[in-house]
Amino acid sequence: MSALVTLTTDFGAGSCYVAALKGVLCSIHPEVRLLDLTHRIPPQNLHYTAYFLLASVPFFPPDTLHVVVVDPGVGSERGILYVEIDSQRLLVPDNGCWTALASAPPKRVLQVTDHSYWLPEVTYTFHGRDIFAPVAGHLSRGLAPEKLGPVTEHWVSLDLPQPSITPLTVSGEVVFIDDFGNLLTNIPGMEYLHWRQQPVRVTVAGQEIAQHVRTYAEARAGTAVVLVSSMNTVEIAVCQGNAARQLGAAIGTPVRLERLA
Amino acid sequence: MSALVTLTTDFGAGSCYVAALKGVLCSIHPEVRLLDLTHRIPPQNLHYTAYFLLASVPFFPPDTLHVVVVDPGVGSERGILYVEIDSQRLLVPDNGCWTALASAPPKRVLQVTDHSYWLPEVTYTFHGRDIFAPVAGHLSRGLAPEKLGPVTEHWVSLDLPQPSITPLTVSGEVVFIDDFGNLLTNIPGMEYLHWRQQPVRVTVAGQEIAQHVRTYAEARAGTAVVLVSSMNTVEIAVCQGNAARQLGAAIGTPVRLERLA
Amino acid sequence: MSALVTLTTDFGAGSCYVAALKGVLCSIHPEVRLLDLTHRIPPQNLHYTAYFLLASVPFFPPDTLHVVVVDPGVGSERGILYVEIDSQRLLVPDNGCWTALASAPPKRVLQVTDHSYWLPEVTYTFHGRDIFAPVAGHLSRGLAPEKLGPVTEHWVSLDLPQPSITPLTVSGEVVFIDDFGNLLTNIPGMEYLHWRQQPVRVTVAGQEIAQHVRTYAEARAGTAVVLVSSMNTVEIAVCQGNAARQLGAAIGTPVRLERLA
Repeated sequence: MSALVTLTTDFGAGSCYVAALKGVLCSIHPEVRLLDLTHRIPPQNLHYTAYFLLASVPFFPPDTLHVVVVDPGVGSERGILYVEIDSQRLLVPDNGCWTALASAPPKRVLQVTDHSYWLPEVTYTFHGRDIFAPVAGHLSRGLAPEKLGPVTEHWVSLDLPQPSITPLTVSGEVVFIDDFGNLLTNIPGMEYLHWRQQPVRVTVAGQEIAQHVRTYAEARAGTAVVLVSSMNTVEIAVCQGNAARQLGAAIGTPVRLERLA
Repeated sequence: MSALVTLTTDFGAGSCYVAALKGVLCSIHPEVRLLDLTHRIPPQNLHYTAYFLLASVPFFPPDTLHVVVVDPGVGSERGILYVEIDSQRLLVPDNGCWTALASAPPKRVLQVTDHSYWLPEVTYTFHGRDIFAPVAGHLSRGLAPEKLGPVTEHWVSLDLPQPSITPLTVSGEVVFIDDFGNLLTNIPGMEYLHWRQQPVRVTVAGQEIAQHVRTYAEARAGTAVVLVSSMNTVEIAVCQGNAARQLGAAIGTPVRLERLA
Repeated sequence: MSALVTLTTDFGAGSCYVAALKGVLCSIHPEVRLLDLTHRIPPQNLHYTAYFLLASVPFFPPDTLHVVVVDPGVGSERGILYVEIDSQRLLVPDNGCWTALASAPPKRVLQVTDHSYWLPEVTYTFHGRDIFAPVAGHLSRGLAPEKLGPVTEHWVSLDLPQPSITPLTVSGEVVFIDDFGNLLTNIPGMEYLHWRQQPVRVTVAGQEIAQHVRTYAEARAGTAVVLVSSMNTVEIAVCQGNAARQLGAAIGTPVRLERLA
């Protein structure tokens, strides 16, 4: 059985571009086992892509090939990379969308340069169909990755916003909002649990979130709560409601912990 | 060939939570045959879930495993159930979302309590990834369901709104709205066909729907019509239009049949 | 291994109608290899369907079966067709949604009339579940297509808007808008490249698009550009932006090339 191939793009759910990409992939490897991760990355949003991959890629079986086409630089001189990291494999534009996944140096990074595995005609605007899809098809059929191009030690890195921690405050921000409207922050859950051993004040854009819970159902409907998310970060939610709307929060909205005692 | 596993959640189409859930499931059972039913259940909406399952689950092949994660009580003391009903199998939170499917008592209901088939670390907010996904993976690989936990005779039941029928009126309501904006009601199609043998007046929130048809194309574009839906209930539609918008109707809007003679 | 079956509908992503259709298909052919192309065709929009199929169907492996349920005439006297065209197979309502795919006469067109391969009870409003799904199930299991019904030489044709070309102007229109907001027109890319050898003025609804590029990244963010699309037609885009919104354009908005010298 061949390895899974997952797809992550910003093409839009049900886009004809996704359909064309799948057509090419299936033409090269008719037995490919495809899984859509998402096609709803906000257009060209590399930070969102990074958090999306962090929340999902590590859970896949070894040797899964993750094809990521969020590619504002399509058709320009930006490269395309094949990456092996922990037990996962990725095919990505060289724009840093994957680098947050790497807790250690990646096992192998290759530049995808050999046209033999691309469609014969490559357009300037749709490398997803013309390069990523056929290369993924060949890889999932068992092509040795080193055929794709040379090993590289250089790639674009994406810096995600880091929280700033002082003896009296942790200043972070909202970095991801899920479809429930829950606010995921860049403040580590361990840090929060440690601070919570003493009185602590949590604010989102200056509004205090007074109720600290382990899960949504512990609060009354409509109440804003602080908890540790399933990604082990600080999360702000509204029980049976939408925290983003209720608190007027967005990506980048500041979130603060302050020591009270 | 292993049985199909279907997924129904309120996580949002393209959510990273769906991706993580699939990753875990595929890690436990790499050959699993997955089908997304929907990830667009309105957040925490158990009634919507019930109607969705009624419209789809009965059409699947025997032994299909339907994983349903619409779970406002995640992390609380609510249980998780494995259910066998007619020829279908379900893995559901014990919140009643499945009980409308049961025309007869279910063949078997088990409490999912044995941690051996869960992820080693279970978060408070994401049982879809940490419990449902691995349990579904093990079941689809052939695990005997009785390994999951004890048989139970007790579960939460969900009461769907029933129409009230008198000699001169049937009073029901809109219980589901599809993506075309068609209004599905809880009035049985047979009841309507019977009443239609004599003059009958149909109203939606007080507005009369005068044209009775068998299918959309029998009316002019823009005309509101009454018909029997593909689920054998009374449906109100607007030919080539959106009935919900045109009539200002929503879930819960009253629909009435009145005998005129 | 059986051929792929793709699904294209206007039911809405995550619709219970899609779920029911898949259930029936899998019941007839449990090993079917299903791929969703889209369920987000705008309701009853045959022109959109035609462009969607043009952008995706030709990329699939030979013998793929494309099931298309965009069917404003459901339940009426409109026919259902099985079509073989180039190396692809389609199951479609006889409403012309597929005819733009045919550069040459189709190899074979059959009327789907034999009830033996339909569900025993066919509703008036959901032929997707009651006819298309079981017929696709039987076909993908290997049923000889001639069992479905008689060969026909007559079908509904859909005329897509054609550009008008004079010595000094090309007048076309926006025919498709993708999820990025890029405007795809019906003006052939070759025609545009030919005109560009001399000074040419491009306007969208009267607004000049002055920058001509090969790909998005060649312009500054926010700039409207003209380029050749991945479908070899003239495309109007806004670099890292949404051209439809920024230019106030929609399907049908006029796009003109004018010779300046």
